[in-house]
Amino acid sequence: MPDPIRFYFDFASPYAYFASTRIEALAQEFGRAVDWRPVLLWAVFRAHGIAPPMDVSVRRDYLLHDMARSADYFGIPYRTPAKLAISSHLAARLYYATAQAEPDTAVAFAKRVFAAFFVEQQDISQSDTLLALAASAGIDAEAATEGMTAGRPLLEQAVADAITDKVVGSPTFIVDGESFFGADRLPQLRWFLGKR
Amino acid sequence: MPDPIRFYFDFASPYAYFASTRIEALAQEFGRAVDWRPVLLWAVFRAHGIAPPMDVSVRRDYLLHDMARSADYFGIPYRTPAKLAISSHLAARLYYATAQAEPDTAVAFAKRVFAAFFVEQQDISQSDTLLALAASAGIDAEAATEGMTAGRPLLEQAVADAITDKVVGSPTFIVDGESFFGADRLPQLRWFLGKR
Repeated sequence: MPDPIRFYFDFASPYAYFASTRIEALAQEFGRAVDWRPVLLWAVFRAHGIAPPMDVSVRRDYLLHDMARSADYFGIPYRTPAKLAISSHLAARLYYATAQAEPDTAVAFAKRVFAAFFVEQQDISQSDTLLALAASAGIDAEAATEGMTAGRPLLEQAVADAITDKVVGSPTFIVDGESFFGADRLPQLRWFLGKR
Repeated sequence: MPDPIRFYFDFASPYAYFASTRIEALAQEFGRAVDWRPVLLWAVFRAHGIAPPMDVSVRRDYLLHDMARSADYFGIPYRTPAKLAISSHLAARLYYATAQAEPDTAVAFAKRVFAAFFVEQQDISQSDTLLALAASAGIDAEAATEGMTAGRPLLEQAVADAITDKVVGSPTFIVDGESFFGADRLPQLRWFLGKR
């Protein structure tokens, strides 16, 4: 079995959401698994000394427009969240706490989080929102509540790994030592996998 | 005749070079002309308050690798220039001075400049390099020498236009009020033109 595709992302990243709807089919084409790795992009940026792109108003305006247009281009349902810069750490902790014993359930939860934030205008920084999403993904209420605390060291390790792996943005895909940043690099990732 | 595609770029941008090999065929598909607009990206960045992406070492490493891999992906000849951050103002001035009377010759010159920098490892910041490139594009030696001075206000105007047009990087394509940044947005530009 060849190595999986490591999929680094932040739950608050629209481009990660777009890529999340494509990466599994792409990986499957080449007999690869996907290793979902939510991280805190601000922490990765801070470690590398990268200024958040949305901090510059001209670029922010461009990106907000490009996000909506890209969703349309990809044919993916999307509504720009009222507030994009939200804290995604509780969602990521819950993901990792679940993934230890039930990786498939954790991925189902991740997909629910993306849909909640980018389609249903839910505030995924709130623990009660996350508890409801966890329940709909089949995660026990007590385990979900605990997970938002217990997942903390796991998330910290994932952020440290992302920094070591030189992640430069969300999404970043790493496979066989090659790093691909951006939903727009999916065609190039496919091309690369086809050559292996 | 529909409006042309405004193609903003910096002669020192690899992604602009990649896009330059594709944009004319794409425009022609939809009956559009291409309006080539070399600018000084550092001046546009400074006006907008955008930090140059290559200033951050982790991102610089990623981009240098991505540039070479992207050339391979696109099937375009490419050798990473020994020094990427060169001054492109003389090339851009000569382009605009030529474009006033002979737009086709100016575009031929622009293509020669890209090939010289990104394939032949020539230093396109040097006036004698540019004079030789101008000659090979059919530009009179005297006109070329003059153009490197006479083109100054034309380049200044182009940079001012790029700032007004909210260019966020190189290449940026603007058509019918829509702005597309990056060689990786060419498929989305095609999709957009197909809907017009």
